[in-house]
Amino acid sequence: MTINGSLLIAGSQKRGTAGEFSGVEAISGKSLPISFGGASPDDVEAAAAQAWEAFASYRETDLETRARFLETIAEEIEAIGDELVVRAMAETGLARGRLEGERARTTGQLRLFAKEVRAGRFQELRFDAGDPSRKPVPKPDLRLRNIPVGPVAVFGASNFPLAFSAAGGDTASSLAAGCPVVVKAHSAHPGTSELVGRAVQRAVASAGLHPGTFSLLFDTGFEVGQSLVADPRIRAVGFTGSRRGGTALMDIASRRKQPIPVYAEMSSINPVILFPGALKSRAADIAASFVSSLVLGAGQFCTNPGLILAVGNEDLDAFIAKAAELLPGVGPQAMLTPSIAKAYSEGVARLQRHPEVRAVAAGKSGSEFEGTAALFETSADAFLAHHELQDEVFGAAGLVVRCSDLAQLEQVLDSLEGQLTIALHIAGEDEPEARRLVPKLEMLAGRLLVNGFGTGVEVSPAMVHGGPYPATADGRSTSVGTLAIYRFLRPVSYQDFTSALLPDALR
Amino acid sequence: MTINGSLLIAGSQKRGTAGEFSGVEAISGKSLPISFGGASPDDVEAAAAQAWEAFASYRETDLETRARFLETIAEEIEAIGDELVVRAMAETGLARGRLEGERARTTGQLRLFAKEVRAGRFQELRFDAGDPSRKPVPKPDLRLRNIPVGPVAVFGASNFPLAFSAAGGDTASSLAAGCPVVVKAHSAHPGTSELVGRAVQRAVASAGLHPGTFSLLFDTGFEVGQSLVADPRIRAVGFTGSRRGGTALMDIASRRKQPIPVYAEMSSINPVILFPGALKSRAADIAASFVSSLVLGAGQFCTNPGLILAVGNEDLDAFIAKAAELLPGVGPQAMLTPSIAKAYSEGVARLQRHPEVRAVAAGKSGSEFEGTAALFETSADAFLAHHELQDEVFGAAGLVVRCSDLAQLEQVLDSLEGQLTIALHIAGEDEPEARRLVPKLEMLAGRLLVNGFGTGVEVSPAMVHGGPYPATADGRSTSVGTLAIYRFLRPVSYQDFTSALLPDALR
Repeated sequence: MTINGSLLIAGSQKRGTAGEFSGVEAISGKSLPISFGGASPDDVEAAAAQAWEAFASYRETDLETRARFLETIAEEIEAIGDELVVRAMAETGLARGRLEGERARTTGQLRLFAKEVRAGRFQELRFDAGDPSRKPVPKPDLRLRNIPVGPVAVFGASNFPLAFSAAGGDTASSLAAGCPVVVKAHSAHPGTSELVGRAVQRAVASAGLHPGTFSLLFDTGFEVGQSLVADPRIRAVGFTGSRRGGTALMDIASRRKQPIPVYAEMSSINPVILFPGALKSRAADIAASFVSSLVLGAGQFCTNPGLILAVGNEDLDAFIAKAAELLPGVGPQAMLTPSIAKAYSEGVARLQRHPEVRAVAAGKSGSEFEGTAALFETSADAFLAHHELQDEVFGAAGLVVRCSDLAQLEQVLDSLEGQLTIALHIAGEDEPEARRLVPKLEMLAGRLLVNGFGTGVEVSPAMVHGGPYPATADGRSTSVGTLAIYRFLRPVSYQDFTSALLPDALR
Repeated sequence: MTINGSLLIAGSQKRGTAGEFSGVEAISGKSLPISFGGASPDDVEAAAAQAWEAFASYRETDLETRARFLETIAEEIEAIGDELVVRAMAETGLARGRLEGERARTTGQLRLFAKEVRAGRFQELRFDAGDPSRKPVPKPDLRLRNIPVGPVAVFGASNFPLAFSAAGGDTASSLAAGCPVVVKAHSAHPGTSELVGRAVQRAVASAGLHPGTFSLLFDTGFEVGQSLVADPRIRAVGFTGSRRGGTALMDIASRRKQPIPVYAEMSSINPVILFPGALKSRAADIAASFVSSLVLGAGQFCTNPGLILAVGNEDLDAFIAKAAELLPGVGPQAMLTPSIAKAYSEGVARLQRHPEVRAVAAGKSGSEFEGTAALFETSADAFLAHHELQDEVFGAAGLVVRCSDLAQLEQVLDSLEGQLTIALHIAGEDEPEARRLVPKLEMLAGRLLVNGFGTGVEVSPAMVHGGPYPATADGRSTSVGTLAIYRFLRPVSYQDFTSALLPDALR
């Protein structure tokens, strides 16, 4: 395989001329070999025009062709071999095991969507037969199906170089829906993106699809992404990243002549509620699982457990004591990029300086490119008074909020913004109280889980990786699991169509 | 029954104190007896607070209770008897037959949603069993369901005093989804709204529901509606009305701390494509059906056929000649309100003055409160050059666009904004050309129909009354038919829940 820093536009490769940048070795901050050229306005124009042109034929592909195409992408990614993992390790600082797992997740996701496409339920075919003899007016023949919305702009995420990037969940669900994709690669892993992008290009070619079905662009700033979202031929956006980035794209999309949906997954601190019975019976065990979840992947998960809510008593003290015992044994971990490492250490410093926050414990510290796990504690009164304590610190930092009782814990819940996940740790005796809270929690998050942590996000028909704003831009959707395909579809009704005119699926 | 001009807030009635206004007899412009008091900020606050409080219990109602409630609303509306039709006739100027039909549509709609609720498919229950022995990590138990989004603000529409007003499609689908409703009544038919609102209030009471499940507010300006959309307890908006009104609400909703979806059905000119074969074989018949559709209900339908596209030849001349022969026989019709009548006559005057537009024919003229049907003609060149010719003229005005050939007709299609409906009139010989155009038309409209006009909107599981912006704010949805319920739902995933904690439906 070759990485040469090219833009991949509709089946061809082209050196971008709008500035250049290099991949950066996460652990050292040093530039990796090969520089990447940024896309010019003409390149964006070409990718969008080709995607629009491809849409005409790609949307009409039969389900088997489309499913096979998704499977071929998976095979082509596997065929890259170890080069992909090695490059991703260098660019992201993530460990081999994690990246091999993420590769399997990515190909599994593509294959799951292939299955979903073959099953065809997403088409939502509906038939309501006419009745010419109905009074007072004849009943028309009505049929309905979902059609793809059009080309989708997908923004690669820094923290999942495979599963939420060039051929990640947004790309897989867009392609499954029948939408061509233009990827804005994340500058945190350009080489990984190019390798995967080339795999998709090969799959497009071997499926005999219009080459505009897939393009991948690099950007040295924000212009490429902004231009894509503003382009009239782009009809939806998939984004995973910061709240500032996501809301900026939402603004652009809403100011278009024809506004389009932005599915932005942005910000979540994923509250964990430790109920009294659970703490009483197994504070130390929960603390151990919590620390594992907190530091997994240097805490760089959207579902990282950043907020622990509990009633303050000796059982919570035991939980904190156990976490404080374990954290110092956690080594420093390379973060995805130098700027993420910097933002994390600034976030931790803000908590350290905060007059109402106490530092509980920290992991071992390392270089400026590594993150040091950190746990803090505050009171519910302080948390309620200081809204900035709700800000996500992206990385392995957690904040325990000590509540006076369950009523105050509920007040804290009432103060929270929308979340991706909320975890409940309970024992049998906690069930009545937990059950009472569930309706409130449903309004706050897309996924609720019991006696676990949200960091594992199963790719499943029953998964919701989404949640009320600002967890995502649109709480009616998910970006993981088969339901994600519905983001890129809209219904059309056909009235009294002749058989010759009907789409095949509705005949 | 009593109309006394009261606000209906959560089971009680209350005289509004923020200004007052009267219903207006559409045909005469004269005030009808009984004045209505506008809602104050405190009234809006009370309605929203009560709706939020009611949401806690209403969302948990079992399907049978909810279905029965919807049916009871239908029964209570029927029980009002002729007073409802008489009042609606006075306020809207619509004919008895039309309003009796609309009442049947409204109650039928409520009963259809009752059926949809009982069927329960909208809950989207999904089960993905766990596997504790899976390697490398155990597979969690995942279950999913849709939950209601929260209280919905519904804006009554001027042109459907029953079917899209206090207990119309938006209210029915919100209540079916499990969302309490606060209606902002349209000032064009306040008495009709109060009568229906009281019917809903009675149904709430007899179902034993929290009274906050339904409120109805009057407004002398725009403040009540704007405050409702901005209120943090309101979680979605249903609106049918003008583009200016709809986009104003979209702006408010997007600037909230937590943005919410606005389902606004706004503006459509509903292109009708007359293919050459169809015109050759039955120009006069099509013209007759067209005129009937154009003038139905004084043209005050969102699906009114406002734009006719055809290749200019002697067959189109025959179509125009027949329409010109029929239109002068069309009498003047009272419009819904004096201001709608004024806006219509101004819109017609703009077309009459337009240098590139020729007046083809007009109906009989009447008073200032009545609309005169009017048909105009222009060239495709002029239509493409003058974007203002795409503006909707709400009422019985149509514009024929004479194209040089099918290629130019396609250019005109490419210039159009999103639409609710597009009608194709074809003969057998037109099918290949029509079939070629269908994919383009699917991207332009929510409903395509063959050899008919869009003015009848069947309440059906296969109906889409929606379409790309600006036809609606959100082209992924419909405001008519059972799919409308999905506007007010969002998915939640439950991971490793204990049986005691699971919602009943997921056990």
